[in-house]
Amino acid sequence: MSQRREPIEYAQASAEVRAVYDDIMATRKTDWVNNFWKVLAHDPPALRRTWATIKEVMAPGALDPLTKELLYLAVSASNGCRYCIASHGAAARKKGMSEAQYSELLAIVGLANHTNTLVNALDVPVDAQFL
Amino acid sequence: MSQRREPIEYAQASAEVRAVYDDIMATRKTDWVNNFWKVLAHDPPALRRTWATIKEVMAPGALDPLTKELLYLAVSASNGCRYCIASHGAAARKKGMSEAQYSELLAIVGLANHTNTLVNALDVPVDAQFL
Amino acid sequence: MSQRREPIEYAQASAEVRAVYDDIMATRKTDWVNNFWKVLAHDPPALRRTWATIKEVMAPGALDPLTKELLYLAVSASNGCRYCIASHGAAARKKGMSEAQYSELLAIVGLANHTNTLVNALDVPVDAQFL
Amino acid sequence: MSQRREPIEYAQASAEVRAVYDDIMATRKTDWVNNFWKVLAHDPPALRRTWATIKEVMAPGALDPLTKELLYLAVSASNGCRYCIASHGAAARKKGMSEAQYSELLAIVGLANHTNTLVNALDVPVDAQFL
Amino acid sequence: MSQRREPIEYAQASAEVRAVYDDIMATRKTDWVNNFWKVLAHDPPALRRTWATIKEVMAPGALDPLTKELLYLAVSASNGCRYCIASHGAAARKKGMSEAQYSELLAIVGLANHTNTLVNALDVPVDAQFL
Amino acid sequence: MSQRREPIEYAQASAEVRAVYDDIMATRKTDWVNNFWKVLAHDPPALRRTWATIKEVMAPGALDPLTKELLYLAVSASNGCRYCIASHGAAARKKGMSEAQYSELLAIVGLANHTNTLVNALDVPVDAQFL
Repeated sequence: MSQRREPIEYAQASAEVRAVYDDIMATRKTDWVNNFWKVLAHDPPALRRTWATIKEVMAPGALDPLTKELLYLAVSASNGCRYCIASHGAAARKKGMSEAQYSELLAIVGLANHTNTLVNALDVPVDAQFL
Repeated sequence: MSQRREPIEYAQASAEVRAVYDDIMATRKTDWVNNFWKVLAHDPPALRRTWATIKEVMAPGALDPLTKELLYLAVSASNGCRYCIASHGAAARKKGMSEAQYSELLAIVGLANHTNTLVNALDVPVDAQFL
Repeated sequence: MSQRREPIEYAQASAEVRAVYDDIMATRKTDWVNNFWKVLAHDPPALRRTWATIKEVMAPGALDPLTKELLYLAVSASNGCRYCIASHGAAARKKGMSEAQYSELLAIVGLANHTNTLVNALDVPVDAQFL
Repeated sequence: MSQRREPIEYAQASAEVRAVYDDIMATRKTDWVNNFWKVLAHDPPALRRTWATIKEVMAPGALDPLTKELLYLAVSASNGCRYCIASHGAAARKKGMSEAQYSELLAIVGLANHTNTLVNALDVPVDAQFL
Repeated sequence: MSQRREPIEYAQASAEVRAVYDDIMATRKTDWVNNFWKVLAHDPPALRRTWATIKEVMAPGALDPLTKELLYLAVSASNGCRYCIASHGAAARKKGMSEAQYSELLAIVGLANHTNTLVNALDVPVDAQFL
Repeated sequence: MSQRREPIEYAQASAEVRAVYDDIMATRKTDWVNNFWKVLAHDPPALRRTWATIKEVMAPGALDPLTKELLYLAVSASNGCRYCIASHGAAARKKGMSEAQYSELLAIVGLANHTNTLVNALDVPVDAQFL
């Protein structure tokens, strides 16, 4: 038996799953759903719950939409999640991320992992000014 | 013998180290240097090199200064680096991050670690649209 | 010269390696050995040592065998180790894990990575009741 | 200005926050709320959303309640999240985890991080039987 | 009930635990045992098993003893494990690590976390020369 | 639009990029440049900066060149960075790493991730002797 869960296409999806797919497409103004959701659809409550959370967290708020995508992309790059980098990279580009901005983002992510390591290894005491 | 390297204060620092401290303060328009640099000063080439990299990466560029700090902070929050969150949180607030923006940033970082986990565990195939 | 170590098949294996392969198959009541062991066999002491540890840790004890596999699988999913998810997922299914249970496991692993991030970033003080 | 967000006690909480606190206590049949929620309360939508997700994911389902807590604890132990280990360790003990079971859990978590490392470093090919 | 397991001192230890403590002290030519073992002693089989593995892995072999400690320390620094950095830092210093060597080690660890991040984010294809 | 940045070959590279490629080949006494640099070349300042740092950190110093490569490789193995393991594994073999040494390195990296997990989960107090 295969470990891998195959993406569930719209045509094969239950009404419960289709409702989420419909909302994803309406919210994003697209006519397709990416594989993350189609694979998560094997667990309909997880699909509904995860989409509800992403929709709420990524909605317009105190940070502008592009900044939000850049933050998502930065954490995904730091985690080395290939699919996440591809999908959130595409979303960020759609919202206006230029190649120069992406290069700066990667430089910051790499540097943060560098200095975070040094800070933890050196057990640097937190400055009174930061408390 | 202690493992922990004590911060090297300006008064005790060598000319080589002082030159970096001076540049940090001039660049940041502050009159003090935070502990990360004072601990790193035990290795003067590392101090010089790391500062030169941060100065270049965090300089004005394609991304605005606040967005850059937010990205640094997001990766530090994802790594759980207490000192890094404190220092880059302070820098971001100084550049204008509001508490509402910080809340959104944390929500995105937590969610990215959540969905990155699912994506990797489910081994989701990258959509053709993202390649 | 290739970096990758090829799996060492039973026919090519030394007596020392075969003894471990035999014990793996006898303990698991199977007639084949999975690639992890065949690749680790390039270092016979590591093969012997790692198998002895897994055999002891995964033996019947205070936790039932299925729970033990689920824990192994959960950590592997959190680490995003593709091979480990495949092999421990197969082992867990063999011991009775249903697809509904696997979905719940993944939901917990994703959520734990989400809330662990928030807790570390917010530096939440441990409640007196938990000490 | 302090980086750290202080826990918001029930007496100082808004009606929106109190409603979540009340549901946490009712669901868990306790008369207090732990610091994670009190710190998260600075962002009421995050508080509501995170509690709703945990409540749903940790509710009775295909896995029994103790197994669910053990999985949460295992991922928290793997991540080295001190607060999370304390809080989910307490929850697991309350649901019946014995010290012998906790010892076995830690042995599995440590071992999984050991073998996951070897598997990734050795780039072990997934066996056909697992696909 | 406390989550934290208190160190078990020699005077309170069972014969099974004392035998391991004795072997640790004899192997290391010291008259004390560090807290890691005293805390692990709550699970005697884990104590025995973990010590046997460390003793075998860290014994003289193809790599000299100092190099082995440096490798252990480098991974611990990368993981940000405070206790592990302290204990393996002390062990490395005892085997001859100079402060200049420690500085170089930290520089390499930080840099590796930096470039590993870039490589994963950029999904760099492996060169034919490395296969 | 593709997410993946294609390697920039010498023939297509700008003078600024070629200068770095030339220095890489001269420093390493090779006639080719590996893909990491060719992909990083999409961001010439990052290329220049990262190479300058690696060149300085990996230059002869207090640690011998092979030990330095082993440390880089150990952290890369711990991070599970496939490209990094391939490239630094090749570099280490070129500087003399034997297969027996590589086996020992992997055993140490796996073990460090094992015991680091236990130490963090058990929240072991640092011994006075290590402070």
